[in-house]
Amino acid sequence: MTVWALLLEYNGAAFVGWQRQATGLSVQEVLETAAARLSHGTPTPTIVAGRTDAGVHAEGQVAQLTLQVPFDNRRLCQALNFHMKPHLVAVLRADPAPDGWNARFSATQRTYRYRILNRSARPALLAGRVWHIPMPLDAEAMHRAAQTLLGRHDFTSFRAAACQANSPLRTLDRLEVARDGDMINITAAARSFLHHQVRNMVGTLRLVGDGRWPESRVRLALEARDRAAAGPTAPADGLTLLAVTYPQDPFAPTTRA
Amino acid sequence: MTVWALLLEYNGAAFVGWQRQATGLSVQEVLETAAARLSHGTPTPTIVAGRTDAGVHAEGQVAQLTLQVPFDNRRLCQALNFHMKPHLVAVLRADPAPDGWNARFSATQRTYRYRILNRSARPALLAGRVWHIPMPLDAEAMHRAAQTLLGRHDFTSFRAAACQANSPLRTLDRLEVARDGDMINITAAARSFLHHQVRNMVGTLRLVGDGRWPESRVRLALEARDRAAAGPTAPADGLTLLAVTYPQDPFAPTTRA
Repeated sequence: MTVWALLLEYNGAAFVGWQRQATGLSVQEVLETAAARLSHGTPTPTIVAGRTDAGVHAEGQVAQLTLQVPFDNRRLCQALNFHMKPHLVAVLRADPAPDGWNARFSATQRTYRYRILNRSARPALLAGRVWHIPMPLDAEAMHRAAQTLLGRHDFTSFRAAACQANSPLRTLDRLEVARDGDMINITAAARSFLHHQVRNMVGTLRLVGDGRWPESRVRLALEARDRAAAGPTAPADGLTLLAVTYPQDPFAPTTRA
Repeated sequence: MTVWALLLEYNGAAFVGWQRQATGLSVQEVLETAAARLSHGTPTPTIVAGRTDAGVHAEGQVAQLTLQVPFDNRRLCQALNFHMKPHLVAVLRADPAPDGWNARFSATQRTYRYRILNRSARPALLAGRVWHIPMPLDAEAMHRAAQTLLGRHDFTSFRAAACQANSPLRTLDRLEVARDGDMINITAAARSFLHHQVRNMVGTLRLVGDGRWPESRVRLALEARDRAAAGPTAPADGLTLLAVTYPQDPFAPTTRA
């Protein structure tokens, strides 16, 4: 029996999200169906670092999979990718996990990127991968306002009603807003996030960016501990799970498939 | 009457190429149909800097359009983008062109980028935007071999049979191969290229990258002046027209839409 750590990339537009749903195809279902084929039909449940919503993409999602049958790292990657065709999911690496490692609970940081395409014209090449906002945004003001959210706080104002976390307390390590031409990149990092927290923070910062809110109102929204005090939820399209950090990196550089 | 310079972005996967074809929808048809709507149905032929093939993308294509009706720069962009919905083409800028300017003949350089995703796993996020090559490639060897093609030469060996150019002589200004993680970026610049020249050069360099050819054979292939002496044509997916250069930039920075 081997516990495997898998590094995954997927296009969220093709799925109802990570988690299995009756309403459509999930990344979890695609991966677990492929894994079951390698296990002679034995169910192979997975554990994931970030349960991304419908439309949210991943460049560095991490999942855990236990297989009874022995495999070589490279072969496992190739076999899973073969069985997941033609779905827009790819296993980039597969490594035997360190002892006691858990994809979800061992993670010490999740890093997300949110992209706003800030220009008049619709995206032709990044359709479905960015939030398109035609009116000019002040990225520097958004960045300054973002810094007032850093640290350990009750993030109730940025929490989805459906959030199942026991506590609204989270520690936000990083929330950077930087313009690169027409693109505004927002990088958010924390040990963990509440449901919709990144998208709700982005939807709020956007109000600062277009001048509807003074910068100082973002901190007041946080302190209100009331979802109605913050801005709307930004669309899923712009969000990508970039990386998950563990005390001990389960992916050795030499095992790149 | 105003001659307009248009800066265009499009996803080549959605079209039969730039040029009108009986076989399907072209970028030209989408643009000219939108332009005709702004001209009360008057046909509005365009001239383009680079007649990209089916599947080839553009981030900085330049086209020329003559309109009888006066327009404001920003309004023209917005109106064209509105009428091109939902096709994956976007006008990023529209500016009145300098006197005597011609989108095709005034261009002094075209810059293309070719991307090879060099990893075992298929692309999930860049499907249709890269050439996926699973076997490891030596990008440094490819770069060294590419340098032997720089300068003014008879590029018959890298020219498609269907090429309509009068002469196979071209001056290659730049052909750089650089690895960035799993991605190999190839940048090619010249005043103009023969039909399929970039894709045929990439398909040839790939043979150096995977070790089937010694670096020196690329120069011999050039000197043979025989299409059969060079490698196969790389797929269109990886190719993007990045930029077109003119002695006088028709797009003033202040007119960004």
